[in-house]
Amino acid sequence: MSNPSSASVELLDALVDANHVLYHQGIVDAFGHVSVRHDRDAGRFLLARNMAPGRVQAADIVEYAVDSGEAVRPDPPRGYLERFIHSEIYKARPDVMAVVHNHSPAVLPFCISRGARLRPVCHMAGFLGGSASRDGPELFEIRDHAGAASNLLVSSRELGAALARTLGASRVVLMRGHGCTVVGESLPVAVFRAVYTEVNAKLVLQALPLGEVDALTPEEADATRITNEGQAARPWELWREQVRRLRGLAP
Amino acid sequence: MSNPSSASVELLDALVDANHVLYHQGIVDAFGHVSVRHDRDAGRFLLARNMAPGRVQAADIVEYAVDSGEAVRPDPPRGYLERFIHSEIYKARPDVMAVVHNHSPAVLPFCISRGARLRPVCHMAGFLGGSASRDGPELFEIRDHAGAASNLLVSSRELGAALARTLGASRVVLMRGHGCTVVGESLPVAVFRAVYTEVNAKLVLQALPLGEVDALTPEEADATRITNEGQAARPWELWREQVRRLRGLAP
Amino acid sequence: MSNPSSASVELLDALVDANHVLYHQGIVDAFGHVSVRHDRDAGRFLLARNMAPGRVQAADIVEYAVDSGEAVRPDPPRGYLERFIHSEIYKARPDVMAVVHNHSPAVLPFCISRGARLRPVCHMAGFLGGSASRDGPELFEIRDHAGAASNLLVSSRELGAALARTLGASRVVLMRGHGCTVVGESLPVAVFRAVYTEVNAKLVLQALPLGEVDALTPEEADATRITNEGQAARPWELWREQVRRLRGLAP
Amino acid sequence: MSNPSSASVELLDALVDANHVLYHQGIVDAFGHVSVRHDRDAGRFLLARNMAPGRVQAADIVEYAVDSGEAVRPDPPRGYLERFIHSEIYKARPDVMAVVHNHSPAVLPFCISRGARLRPVCHMAGFLGGSASRDGPELFEIRDHAGAASNLLVSSRELGAALARTLGASRVVLMRGHGCTVVGESLPVAVFRAVYTEVNAKLVLQALPLGEVDALTPEEADATRITNEGQAARPWELWREQVRRLRGLAP
Repeated sequence: MSNPSSASVELLDALVDANHVLYHQGIVDAFGHVSVRHDRDAGRFLLARNMAPGRVQAADIVEYAVDSGEAVRPDPPRGYLERFIHSEIYKARPDVMAVVHNHSPAVLPFCISRGARLRPVCHMAGFLGGSASRDGPELFEIRDHAGAASNLLVSSRELGAALARTLGASRVVLMRGHGCTVVGESLPVAVFRAVYTEVNAKLVLQALPLGEVDALTPEEADATRITNEGQAARPWELWREQVRRLRGLAP
Repeated sequence: MSNPSSASVELLDALVDANHVLYHQGIVDAFGHVSVRHDRDAGRFLLARNMAPGRVQAADIVEYAVDSGEAVRPDPPRGYLERFIHSEIYKARPDVMAVVHNHSPAVLPFCISRGARLRPVCHMAGFLGGSASRDGPELFEIRDHAGAASNLLVSSRELGAALARTLGASRVVLMRGHGCTVVGESLPVAVFRAVYTEVNAKLVLQALPLGEVDALTPEEADATRITNEGQAARPWELWREQVRRLRGLAP
Repeated sequence: MSNPSSASVELLDALVDANHVLYHQGIVDAFGHVSVRHDRDAGRFLLARNMAPGRVQAADIVEYAVDSGEAVRPDPPRGYLERFIHSEIYKARPDVMAVVHNHSPAVLPFCISRGARLRPVCHMAGFLGGSASRDGPELFEIRDHAGAASNLLVSSRELGAALARTLGASRVVLMRGHGCTVVGESLPVAVFRAVYTEVNAKLVLQALPLGEVDALTPEEADATRITNEGQAARPWELWREQVRRLRGLAP
Repeated sequence: MSNPSSASVELLDALVDANHVLYHQGIVDAFGHVSVRHDRDAGRFLLARNMAPGRVQAADIVEYAVDSGEAVRPDPPRGYLERFIHSEIYKARPDVMAVVHNHSPAVLPFCISRGARLRPVCHMAGFLGGSASRDGPELFEIRDHAGAASNLLVSSRELGAALARTLGASRVVLMRGHGCTVVGESLPVAVFRAVYTEVNAKLVLQALPLGEVDALTPEEADATRITNEGQAARPWELWREQVRRLRGLAP
């Protein structure tokens, strides 16, 4: 764990905790995954082996190469089929330090109904809109890239690259019939965004029957995002304390 | 427990755990039941005595004959009134190794509203559609078999056989005003399908107000089903670990 | 506890457990109450003092007279303002052995929207319809009895009697802007009906957007009710075991 | 803690518990805050430092001046950006003894959909209407005060004063795209109102598809509010006992 190319213990611990937080918050179930860019080598990232996020321990974390999306060490444990989501986004977006892929329950309806848009409607979710995505996240239609008979999985470098192109410079990309992928400048920010993407989606679903929805202006979205990212430690500390307590660890 | 015709201890344990998993996941409440085909005698299956699934222990499991739907041993404890759901499906479908019957809360609306169809809308639920059931599961209307004054229960071999005919070669059958029945090639697969039938139903209910729903194509449904069945161990291990911990057992 | 007019310890224990079950099942919150008719004196009933159901212990149970709705013993602890719901129903309905009053969350919409009917749509809730209430429970409009400026509480013998008249020979009565009252031939049956009134209400709310709702026929409702009452011990044993475990008691 | 200007230990303890109750009841998540007016100096109020309410301990409580919205002691810990919500309401409303600000999930849709009104529809939420707010709470549109590019936060005395003006003599004010603020004549009453504002909002959202909603008359709203405030200790004792048990404290 202490050779020069190893990621820091703090980063490993944070990634394990992030797996449990996302499960505890209902953002992933037995499926979904979260990665973080290596803190001593920008060409690598850390991701659990193929398993349910709520069971991940430090020994389950594997180093992957950004370039290939394959494990760095020989003879690695079985990986997630969709690890290319992570590798291709890290490749296309040097600013991204963490990636969450999930089947978030209130977000999925926006990946199912034609023409639906997930605009930010509350100040905690400004990151969904703003100058980078004025109408909310784009939808990745895998039929355009893999045809009408695919298994919907982003299971190759090519499909990962196509997803990264749809993400563009924004922070969230919806995936038709599948879920979404969320990025952040840090692990706490990516987890924060994954949770509040779900919160905002629930709000839109509940607000629809009441009348025309009043979304944040792009300027409001940008302003709230900047303010809230300065507060991302607040939920992170709460959530991390909760999952560490559930695992019998010191907070 | 060790005479030649006994089911393996592993199968018994797995069936007990499946009862608890289905309760813990909210798929059954005090009602509903899960069975597994005997692993040393294809003409038998295992099912708990008449009790809430969340309270089942190994001593509560009873062997039933596929042919009659009656307990093998003399003087058995009281059985479920609807054990014929299980026996007649095992009879009609040699490929089926496990059966779940439930009143799954988000699935029931599709058993109540005339003309509603439960099409697969996310890649975890491809088993609902595909070549075997292009428009999603069929609805079993018990009025067609038991008249308009029945207690809605599948409480005879004849009604069980009628239900099995409506199921046909598919994996899920809806039951009007009642619930659904889900089958699988193994216990983990049947439990997986029962859980994700509920997940998919919730998604459709939430997506409806957003606009026209974009279901998986039959080809996508088949492809995702094949891929996901290769991953069925992932949720099974998570869920089993959870319910064993709740019961104070070693994971 | 052993003088001839005392209720049995078993009944007291069951009433304490029923309070906790209704709280644990989300049927009551800090408000709502459940009573049982005295098992050695049909002119009395047992009800907790004014407190949250989830905190009730045996020492909190008070004997009330059916005739007056007042406590039997002198200098009693503060009672529920709406104890007359219980006394007047026991007076009007000798067949009723237990009464639950609650603000059940999915039932309340049917007490708020003009013209809404809570018909039974699943076989667990046949008691809502049948020959005694073909279109589902009636709505008690307190404005008809207390005017348009009341506090909506059934806080007198007169209002209790009016509510009992609206209940008539049925099993559930809705109360406008307030909640519902559920009766049973035993405590387990009344608790069962309170829980499945909520379940059925959720189902109707979820099924509405899918299309025209197919309710049970009155004959189906009667038949399912009779069958399910023979199964009322199953949930009761599960629920009771759960709340006793939560309180650190032997199941 | 015992110098003359200190708040009582009882008040401090109650405020800590109120933070945990609001988290446990789902009214705040990692964001939101609750304050209480100092019980020995009406020109001060108590509020936690900038942190998640569910983690607050007595040592985290800070005294603020009503006049400035700034901490009384020099070199205070980082405060909530929106502490001016509290200070300006205490200034404008001498009758108010406690203030809750939150992003209550079912209330937010009423802060998002144009023209939606949150009228009281059940007797537990009469405080939402009545003579002081006949059509339910007013909506504070921050664009009218901070322009169309703000971060939506009430982060100055001026914005706090504008919010207090929109609140007027009522008990709840909605905040566009943001949440709500609830006041009370005591801490238990403010917490009660925050919880039942959420309950009432859920009811309206669920009742809408059933037909025209029948709200309480203003006279019913006033009458139920007066009655229920006499019962506010009942939920407060239940909720406080629950969160103290969760923290391992004596109830």
